[in-house]
Amino acid sequence: MRSDPPAGVLEAFWAYERALGTDDLAALDRLFADGPGTLRGDAAGLLVGHEQIAAFRGTRGGAPARRVVEVHVRTVDDDHALVVAVTELVRGGRGQQTQLWERTDGRWAVAAAHVHAPAPAFDPRVWRVLGDPLVPGAAGGPLAGRGVAVKDLFAVAGQRVGAGTPAWLADAPVEAEHAHVVAALLGAGAHVRGVARTDELAYSLAGTNAHTGAPPNPRAPGRVPGGSSSGSAAAVALGQADVGLGTDTGGSIRVPASYQGLFGIRTTHGAVPTTGLVPLAPSFDTVGWLTRDADLLAAVGDVLLPPRGGAAGTSRLVVSPALLALAQDDVAARVRRFAADAGAVPTTAWDGVDLAAWAEVFRLRQAWEAWRAHGAWVTAHPGALGADVAGRFAAAAGVDDATGARAGEQREQVRAQVLDLVGDDVLVLPAAPSVAPRPDPAGLDAVRAATLRLTCVAGLGGLPAVVLPTPGPTPPPGPDGGTGGRADRPVGVCLVAAPGRDRELLGLARDLARTTG
Amino acid sequence: MRSDPPAGVLEAFWAYERALGTDDLAALDRLFADGPGTLRGDAAGLLVGHEQIAAFRGTRGGAPARRVVEVHVRTVDDDHALVVAVTELVRGGRGQQTQLWERTDGRWAVAAAHVHAPAPAFDPRVWRVLGDPLVPGAAGGPLAGRGVAVKDLFAVAGQRVGAGTPAWLADAPVEAEHAHVVAALLGAGAHVRGVARTDELAYSLAGTNAHTGAPPNPRAPGRVPGGSSSGSAAAVALGQADVGLGTDTGGSIRVPASYQGLFGIRTTHGAVPTTGLVPLAPSFDTVGWLTRDADLLAAVGDVLLPPRGGAAGTSRLVVSPALLALAQDDVAARVRRFAADAGAVPTTAWDGVDLAAWAEVFRLRQAWEAWRAHGAWVTAHPGALGADVAGRFAAAAGVDDATGARAGEQREQVRAQVLDLVGDDVLVLPAAPSVAPRPDPAGLDAVRAATLRLTCVAGLGGLPAVVLPTPGPTPPPGPDGGTGGRADRPVGVCLVAAPGRDRELLGLARDLARTTG
Repeated sequence: MRSDPPAGVLEAFWAYERALGTDDLAALDRLFADGPGTLRGDAAGLLVGHEQIAAFRGTRGGAPARRVVEVHVRTVDDDHALVVAVTELVRGGRGQQTQLWERTDGRWAVAAAHVHAPAPAFDPRVWRVLGDPLVPGAAGGPLAGRGVAVKDLFAVAGQRVGAGTPAWLADAPVEAEHAHVVAALLGAGAHVRGVARTDELAYSLAGTNAHTGAPPNPRAPGRVPGGSSSGSAAAVALGQADVGLGTDTGGSIRVPASYQGLFGIRTTHGAVPTTGLVPLAPSFDTVGWLTRDADLLAAVGDVLLPPRGGAAGTSRLVVSPALLALAQDDVAARVRRFAADAGAVPTTAWDGVDLAAWAEVFRLRQAWEAWRAHGAWVTAHPGALGADVAGRFAAAAGVDDATGARAGEQREQVRAQVLDLVGDDVLVLPAAPSVAPRPDPAGLDAVRAATLRLTCVAGLGGLPAVVLPTPGPTPPPGPDGGTGGRADRPVGVCLVAAPGRDRELLGLARDLARTTG
Repeated sequence: MRSDPPAGVLEAFWAYERALGTDDLAALDRLFADGPGTLRGDAAGLLVGHEQIAAFRGTRGGAPARRVVEVHVRTVDDDHALVVAVTELVRGGRGQQTQLWERTDGRWAVAAAHVHAPAPAFDPRVWRVLGDPLVPGAAGGPLAGRGVAVKDLFAVAGQRVGAGTPAWLADAPVEAEHAHVVAALLGAGAHVRGVARTDELAYSLAGTNAHTGAPPNPRAPGRVPGGSSSGSAAAVALGQADVGLGTDTGGSIRVPASYQGLFGIRTTHGAVPTTGLVPLAPSFDTVGWLTRDADLLAAVGDVLLPPRGGAAGTSRLVVSPALLALAQDDVAARVRRFAADAGAVPTTAWDGVDLAAWAEVFRLRQAWEAWRAHGAWVTAHPGALGADVAGRFAAAAGVDDATGARAGEQREQVRAQVLDLVGDDVLVLPAAPSVAPRPDPAGLDAVRAATLRLTCVAGLGGLPAVVLPTPGPTPPPGPDGGTGGRADRPVGVCLVAAPGRDRELLGLARDLARTTG
């Protein structure tokens, strides 16, 4: 391979550098090859096609200032060359870019680019505080060597609790003691890797945060991570922690698990102590956690869950077409196939249930409790919350005591109905109605409403729910098949059962992960 | 550009994946093109040539387990194709690799590869604890917005001090108050980004640490970062902090500054309070800091240094060929040119000085003081230190009081001689005798001995010393010149003057950086 560059390619390379420096989007678009085959990859993921790449550039607001310190050219022929450049950023650190240039009709353009910028000290969208470790675990124990990302709602001794809101953090005292579950994990040998971001006061399912941004979703670049246990989930998906400790009031474990292809559990309401946890809506709040595999999900359950009670149910799986219909078609299809592969029995029992009405009961009672928990603080800190969560609290402020009480009564009726419908079976349903959506504020409101129609079943029932990823329809590439296209975005399936059956669900998830994964 | 792959390239791609999985070095070497032009880049830097790439593979101990989730091929012709693959690691996170494959004599091999693995939560070779921020600074102030990496020898309230040694950390109490300089930086608006790694008890110049490894040197991949302020320096070079707070007893600021192309200052002994600092050899210990530019170096000095005294000297630069001769030829040439460009006047005043004898005085007195400071702790913690630092303390234990006292007297004589030799001028000398060496333990001992012959001048004299990077001999690539080869490894030049002239040296460094940079 020659290293003398073909005519014009270096001029094009430098023109590209200049366009980057001035964020000249038109020039950058022109210097990337047109068409659906153009590639651009960086730490956030691989973009395929000129359109995706142009959209990315349009929103990032320019590249950091830099100078080129090395340029290497590997020439294929007069119309193709690879240009590899080492860059030095003004803000420190070195990056690299590899570009395959192609000349078509006399014009040079990049057909594929691979870029890396220097890593920041850590990703502040995912973490607030980190250590090596932040808190060491006990010697030995079943969770020895496992790192935990603690959602910034749990007390960690020596740290403040930030609850996703800078103004909350500023007022917060240094905690003298660990939250109950943090202490239990440490006692079992796990260590605390750090304190992970959360949606503000956990009052969101999107995983966005007006102050610190949305953690990345490595399995769905450009999409939201899901929340409110957003940082805990991203830390696990990114391989930066083994266990993501979080909470689930209305779906805050189940949604990020589904969006990111993780395993997660929302425990039976009341089964795991919430001591040392900032509440959102206490009659719904539960502890939960996320992992990359079903074995560790169960192993954490062995540490945190009460011993198995006597009232075990059956392991019969049932699936309701009426519930599947609450999800988008692609998600419903994935969950339907999963259920079929797992031998789930269809049921018509849910056909007449008005899930929209249930979700409204959930919404009202949650809002009433949330305002009781935080209304005084929110009132005393105008402007402290981002628009989405502030709007939710403003609505919550309008839920008067009579409405709250009535929602509480309705909730008890729904709970009885849920217990009856679920019975001794294991209900299979979509963990979320769609794959991870784009971070479009207006769209996210609709997603939230659709999500609560599915997640309110376990929420209103106080039921345990375990999420596991479904296999995608596209086979991965392999030595035989060669290439594989775009990897599928994750879709989670949720298993719900009667209160107290958490350990059974965890065992079932292990079995299902082995047979369907 | 076609996306149907040429015959055989995917088979070669999958053979490469299999060889990675089993760390089959012979197969990997075979699947990378022979010769000096082959490229392989990742976050640690760009390797050029098959030989460098094979050497890297031989020491890394295999790639992390992963599966390929996307493969994209862009075909140039029957013998050239770019293969872009997205990988999913078993330990979490996604990576990407871009490979330019070439067929020569019927055999496919990689001519250039660009790889990125998912980032860890943070680099534990650089940092021990991190936050966003770890400690906020005062509102406003001259250092507002600047992040500080605090060497793990200074007290940060709420944190323990680790001193680079896990056994030290395990015994350490949580600090109630900030070290003097930490408090001063916070008061000036800077924030603490985190606690950075140090060589154990600061008793090294290499930047290696037996427990946590050597921080990377982004400007000299595969080379040591220099120490003992190793993490503070790497954090600044990587752009993960703006100010690296450290100490300099025998060169612990000057050496990493030189190896990493940074600006650094070792302050006049006694000029900046060491309250809240773990000592090494108190009669030599000084506070220092590192930055990426001369302006910030001086701005920190405005905060931490005492007001300028009355006894200002001249700004005449002098350079001693005898001192240059203590550096390797390439370093001496860089410093000589820098001195010439800066208008330094040659001096023969240092020709008769026995720097080796001075370095021995420094070594003995430092050892005697270090054992007084830490001998009891070292004795009580057998096996706690890595071999290099343990060996140094073992030698220090053998320096009896009579020898220590005699070295103290000789030191006073040398100090008087240094003050006389430096006079009112500014001495220009190499900051270190070589570029950053490889992390070879035997070699590092020789480097340390050679380094002390240069650095002991300021150490024995208690003098301020400012380091700034010299421009390399190779011009960087540019729009006119096109490509540029391997970027030069950094070489620092050191400016030394009489005690108390710190601020003058900082101003001089600003001027010189503008005219020579």
